Order: sequence, then C-alpha cells, then structure tokens
Amino acid sequence: MKKLFAEFFGTFWLVFGGCGSALFAAGIPNLGIGFAGVSLAFGLTVLTMAYAVGHISGGHFNPAVSFGLWAGGRFSAKDLLGYIVAQCIGAIAAAGTLYTIASGKIGFAIDNTKAGAFASNGFGAFSPDGYSMQAAFLAEFVLTLFFLLVILGATDKFANGKFAGIAIGLALTLIHLISIPITNTSVNPARSLSQALFVGGEPLSQVWLFWAAPILGAIAAGFIYKNLLQNNSQA
Amino acid sequence: MKKLFAEFFGTFWLVFGGCGSALFAAGIPNLGIGFAGVSLAFGLTVLTMAYAVGHISGGHFNPAVSFGLWAGGRFSAKDLLGYIVAQCIGAIAAAGTLYTIASGKIGFAIDNTKAGAFASNGFGAFSPDGYSMQAAFLAEFVLTLFFLLVILGATDKFANGKFAGIAIGLALTLIHLISIPITNTSVNPARSLSQALFVGGEPLSQVWLFWAAPILGAIAAGFIYKNLLQNNSQA
Amino acid sequence: MKKLFAEFFGTFWLVFGGCGSALFAAGIPNLGIGFAGVSLAFGLTVLTMAYAVGHISGGHFNPAVSFGLWAGGRFSAKDLLGYIVAQCIGAIAAAGTLYTIASGKIGFAIDNTKAGAFASNGFGAFSPDGYSMQAAFLAEFVLTLFFLLVILGATDKFANGKFAGIAIGLALTLIHLISIPITNTSVNPARSLSQALFVGGEPLSQVWLFWAAPILGAIAAGFIYKNLLQNNSQA
Amino acid sequence: MKKLFAEFFGTFWLVFGGCGSALFAAGIPNLGIGFAGVSLAFGLTVLTMAYAVGHISGGHFNPAVSFGLWAGGRFSAKDLLGYIVAQCIGAIAAAGTLYTIASGKIGFAIDNTKAGAFASNGFGAFSPDGYSMQAAFLAEFVLTLFFLLVILGATDKFANGKFAGIAIGLALTLIHLISIPITNTSVNPARSLSQALFVGGEPLSQVWLFWAAPILGAIAAGFIYKNLLQNNSQA
Repeated sequence: MKKLFAEFFGTFWLVFGGCGSALFAAGIPNLGIGFAGVSLAFGLTVLTMAYAVGHISGGHFNPAVSFGLWAGGRFSAKDLLGYIVAQCIGAIAAAGTLYTIASGKIGFAIDNTKAGAFASNGFGAFSPDGYSMQAAFLAEFVLTLFFLLVILGATDKFANGKFAGIAIGLALTLIHLISIPITNTSVNPARSLSQALFVGGEPLSQVWLFWAAPILGAIAAGFIYKNLLQNNSQA
Repeated sequence: MKKLFAEFFGTFWLVFGGCGSALFAAGIPNLGIGFAGVSLAFGLTVLTMAYAVGHISGGHFNPAVSFGLWAGGRFSAKDLLGYIVAQCIGAIAAAGTLYTIASGKIGFAIDNTKAGAFASNGFGAFSPDGYSMQAAFLAEFVLTLFFLLVILGATDKFANGKFAGIAIGLALTLIHLISIPITNTSVNPARSLSQALFVGGEPLSQVWLFWAAPILGAIAAGFIYKNLLQNNSQA
Repeated sequence: MKKLFAEFFGTFWLVFGGCGSALFAAGIPNLGIGFAGVSLAFGLTVLTMAYAVGHISGGHFNPAVSFGLWAGGRFSAKDLLGYIVAQCIGAIAAAGTLYTIASGKIGFAIDNTKAGAFASNGFGAFSPDGYSMQAAFLAEFVLTLFFLLVILGATDKFANGKFAGIAIGLALTLIHLISIPITNTSVNPARSLSQALFVGGEPLSQVWLFWAAPILGAIAAGFIYKNLLQNNSQA
Repeated sequence: MKKLFAEFFGTFWLVFGGCGSALFAAGIPNLGIGFAGVSLAFGLTVLTMAYAVGHISGGHFNPAVSFGLWAGGRFSAKDLLGYIVAQCIGAIAAAGTLYTIASGKIGFAIDNTKAGAFASNGFGAFSPDGYSMQAAFLAEFVLTLFFLLVILGATDKFANGKFAGIAIGLALTLIHLISIPITNTSVNPARSLSQALFVGGEPLSQVWLFWAAPILGAIAAGFIYKNLLQNNSQA
C-alpha cells in the first residue's frame, strides 16, 4: 500500500510540476521560462521524487515505465495494474489542483481548439508545431524507448545505481528539450490522460496515441536491453 | 550555537542569492536570466549550503522546513524557536545587504504599489500574474507540502541520503519554475518576511499568507510522510 | 558485441537528442530553447547514457574520445575500428530517424546553402556566426583537448570516478555553450559525419575539419594527461 | 609540479569557457545563451575540472580561493605564490586563445570604452548595469565570502565531500546569476587580470578592485568558517 501511495504522490508531482510550469510560467512575456524551463521542470519532478520515494516504490510515476520494467524482467506483471491505477489517479488529482489554481486568475478558460491547451498532448492540428500523426508516433516511440534504456541501464546491478535518479530525471528533461514542439511531449500515458480529461474534444480523442506509442516503445526497450545489452552472466 | 550560525549564513545566502538574482539580473533586456534563472538561483542557494553546512545544522534555512521536520518526527520542538529566529535574522541581514547594493545604482527606489517589488511575495493585485488569494494559498500549501515530502523522503534512513542536497535544492528550483507568476514564490516564511519589511505597505500586510500556507503545508507533509509513506519497521 | 551495441545506442542518442533539440526546438519563436537548451541537450545525452551503458562499453559515443583514450593509454588500439564503426552507424541511424520525423511537418526541406542546415557543422560561410576556417580549427582542437582532459582526469584511478558521468556530460554542455556560434559545435566526428551526409554540398566537403581537429585535440590531450598530470606512481 | 600544471589547465578552462561563452554566444540575437548561459558555463568549468584534476591540485583555479583556503587553515602559505602564478598564466593563455579565435570573425575589435568589453570586469561607467564602486566592492566581497564558505564547508572532513565539486561549481553559477549586471562578476582575480590585460584602458585601471574585494572576502570567510562554523573537536 505504501508503494501505491508513493506512486500516487510521485505522479501527482510529475503532472503538477511539469504541466503546472507549462501552464503558469512558460509564456509570460520577456521573463517566462519557455520550453527549456518546462523541460527542466518535468525532469526535476522525477529526479526529486526518485530520491524521495524511489526507495519505497521504485519510482515509476508513469505506466510506460512500469510496462518497460516488466518487459525488461524487473517488475512483476501482478503489480502492473495497481501501479497504473495509482499513477492515473495521482495525475488526475494533480490536473484538478492545477485547474483550481488556474481558475484563480480572471479570464481563465481552456480552449480545446488550440494545440497544447491545458498542457495537453496532440498531433496534426494539435501538435504545437504542426507535426503529423506518423511523426508524432515515431517520436513518442523512439523517445520512450530510449527513456527506458536509460532506466534499465542506470538501475542495472552492474551500474553505478545511486546516480540513477539523476540520470533518469535528466533523461526526461532531455526528452522534453527535443520534442515539446512535436507532441507537447508525453512519453507518459498518465500525464496525457489527466490533461486530456480536462480538455476534452479532439485532444481527448487523440489520447490513444499517447498510450500506444510510449507503451510499445517501452516494451521494445525491455527486449532490447535484455537481449542486446544486459550482462546475463552470474558474475 | 554553531547550528544557529549555520542557519543564519544559509538563510542569508538563500535570500541574497534568490532574491538578489531576481532584483539584479532577471529583467535585463535581451540578456536577463528571467524566471528560469531566478528559479535556478534559489535552488542552488539550498543545494550549495546543504553540502556546505548541512552537516552542522541539518540545513533547514526556512521556518516551514523546521516545522515540517518537527511534524515528521525528525526535529525537536525545543530547537524550533532558535532555528526560526536565526533564519529570520539571516534573511533580514541579506535583504539589507541587497538594499545597500541596489542603492548603488542611480535611480533605485522600491515602488510598493507594484507586484513583486524588491522580490516581495503577494497575491491578488500583488501577484505577478494576477492570481487570487485562494489560488495563492492553495499553491503555497501544495508546493510546500511536496517540498517537505521530498525533504523527508530524501533524508529517510532507507533513502540514498548523500544525494539529498541535490534533490532538495533542485526541488526548490522546480517550485519556482511553477509558481513565480502566482505569488513570486515563497514556500519560506523567512524569505517573505525579510523582503516585506523593506517594502512595507500592502505587501507587508499580505505576509501572513506566506507564513500560514507554507507552515500548514509543511505540517501536513510531516503527517502524510509518517503515516502513509514511511517504513516504520525496525529493519 | 554488447560493447558495440552500447556504442551504437549511445551515439544514436547523442545525435538524436543533441541535433534533434536543435532541429525541432531551438528556434521556436518566444518559447524556443535556443543555444543554451541545445547545449544542455547534448550534455544530457552523454550524462544519461554514461550512467546507462557506461558500465558496458565505457561510454565513448565519439571517435575522438576513443582516440583520446587510446592516446592516454586507457583503450586498446585493436578495439578502435569497431567502436568507431558502431558510433558512425549509430549517428547515421539517428540522423535518418530525425529526417523522417522532420519530414512529418509540411514544408520541411534541407537548405544546404545555409549555415547549420540540419544541424550540420561548418566554418567560413557555413559557420553560424561567420568564423574563419582557422578559428574553427583552433576552437575544435582546444575544446576537444579539454573535453578529453576532463574525461581522462575524471576517470583516473585516483579520482572520484562515480561522478565522471556528470562531469563528462556537463563538459559537453559547456563546450556547446561556448562554441555553437563558431562551428555549430562538433568535437565529435561521428556527429559531424551523420548530419553532413544528409545535407551534402559544401557542408559535406567541410566535414574533414571535424574529423581532423577533434581527433588531433584528443590525441594531444592523451599525451598531456599522461606526461604532465597523471600520477604514475604505484601508490 | 603536477599541481601547478593542474592549476594552469584548470584556470585556462575557467577563463576559456566562462569568458568564451560570454564573448561568442551570449548576445547572438534570439538564440543567444544570455547571462544565464554564461553563468552555467562558468560554473561548469569549475565542476568539470574539480572532478578532473581536483585530486591533483585540490582544484583552486582562483587566487582568492587559494587565499581563503590558507586563511581557513587548509592550504600552506608556502604554496600560495606558485599556485597564483600558475593560475594567472593559465588565465592569460586562455585570454590569448580567445583573442585568436575571436579575431577569426571579420570586424572583431575590442572597444575599451564599453562596459564588459572582452568579458572584462568593471564598476561605475564600466559596470554592465551602472553600479557604483562601493556597490561593486560590497558585491564582490560578499559573493567571494560565501563562495569560500561553500568551499570550506563542502570540503570539511565532516561533510559529504565527494559532492564538493558539484556544490562548488554550481556556487559559481549562482554567483554569476546574481551579479553579472553589477560587475560582470569576478570573484576571481586571475580571471579579471587576464581580460583586463587584453582590454587595457580604464578596465585595466579598475582591476585592483577585483583583486582586493575577492581576496578580502575570501580571507574573511576563512576566519568565519574556522571560528563560527567548524567543528574543532577531535571526534
């Protein structure tokens, strides 16, 4: 049960911090933090929570990560559902809190005809810089694949594991530095779901891609790591 | 006594570095560091002082942190008052030094009808981007709550404790990336008090919120961590 | 063989992340990540992969690094060719993936008369800010020399080696912060080759400099480190 | 002798990377790295070299640091002169290399009537944002004092010393985030001297302040740390 609370709080923080920085601070004229600041924020949610509750739950905060660790032989199938439910509830609770705070500014409204509304993910007309569905799928697939390679590698028993929280958190920063203009960056189905539920409309109907591509990329990484990179000797 | 000196110097650095970067460098045209640079500065004050004097005083530099650690069972009630006094004196000394340096530029004056004057915190008309008192309270409460979850988790005896200074410092960076536009970001009553004392007027009369919300959020975190997350076994 | 896969994936990530952030996110109006964001991205590709697969291959991801480690007596000549081939294949695969994603935006085309097209390196008319061939050569030579001094020093048996991934990754960030305007920053022949192959024209005919200068700088560093800095005692 | 080479290369890198990023990359329209990028660059020169050659020379790269460590009882007076000479030669060599590269762009010239020319330090009319001599002195004194408190604290035998390179490097980043507009940030007499020698004129005649204030601040820190913070017990 402590594990599920840890995943709940960790994923809350990921959505509250990452999407919150995008909503409140990215676009302020002259002083705003821009895409680079949002990228840093997403990564730091994971870095901070990895050191805070990683020792409790392993620190997934992301259904694709749970799937990838399962595919890599590091996580039990029987725990998958519980983790994913806790992650999605945490993400939705964070989105609700963000909505409440955002409503405290006069004139706040979500315009679901606009790309990236309420920090939602999207492709085609809902890609921040106009990338097609195919490009969005490929980007999310490749980025999640490498995210999981970093996770599986940095937590390998032969690796320098105490630094995994830094490597994994900053991998998420890097992923956002590359791809906010393409899909507003997901690589995390829970983060995509929570924002889409509050936005509705077309962004909600596109949310399937942000479950399919990250989970497939993560599973591919599990197989690649196990078969091509992992030292399977007993040493 | 060394502990109180450590809290004095640490909180001086937090206010001097965080508020100083905002005052001197954030808004320089074209080259200024913006909200992202100020966020980094606040976080680095804590990261650097955590490694410098954390071994002396524990490195709180913030009355809300002292309250949260007390609520989480990590800090003795009898030390609270001394720490908080040392923190407030350090913050005020830093604000005075900033005032002296700022006065060395021709035309410097504090305009206390403007949101964020002399790096002060505020809500409503004194919120940098116009957020209501309710939104400001909720944001400060939630952000301090998670700040303390990171602190309590990263310093847990089962955690990877040598990295706590990085996780905690960068958590403060993250918090600023999210919320400078909402309240100019406090999560630290000493930092709010010192700036408000130099500004006076309405910002000073709003300082109660930046004591109440962070301290309540920190205490909530202490109870949450102890009851929902902490491994209380003897292992 | 696992070593070569590790170099393939690591160099793929370096090119995909570093050049990808430049292509997709650097120049977005108002919110773009700029040269600072691209610098961070390049460094984080190395930092993340160093912790992920450094324990497998040593984490070179760069032919100049392999040459420099050989010159410093840390890497065997017989492994040089395999590593360099794996690095170049990884870089080219990444460039191809970037090309495919970029093509998913209407109007995408590579204009090989423009400095920095498709994140290519160049000098003279192909230097982002108009630096001569001599300046470009000197910059690439000096920067790679110091990159290798950091690598050789941080992985020295007397050094604090677990932090090498942080120091080396952030050294690459630093190198980009200095020199994107000069050559679009290479210090990595594989990264230069992959982008030049997709661009063709003059940028491809300039690629020799981005093999010669980094490799010579790296070899110089090997000799300097071994003869002037390294503690050769048995202690 | 290895120690002096380590100080030479480390200080070369500090000036080449820090001042180089300011010269080449800070002011590029739209994409430039600004003061935040320069701040990061200065800090990363120290972070990277601390892990690379810190095990050889202790990693001072700055005459004020050598004086402060001497005042704090950590460095022998008889080594002071050698270190400072090696640091100054390294800084001047770096400035010369920067000058050579900068000359590779058509139209390059140093205008020594402009604040911050060739990354020089200054006050009054030569302060980037117009701060007086008194403000400049106070800022450099306080910032170097805290820089040394971080250094003395993070390398204390009771501290978490393996992280000192991160804390010290990022302290220099923080210092620049605060004070580039005030003095163009020195806290390092060698870095000030090397740039002033190439600029000449008024900036050269102001260089005394950037020796006096940092060295006095550093010595003050040595006494403060030893007397108010250090645990002098035998434990």
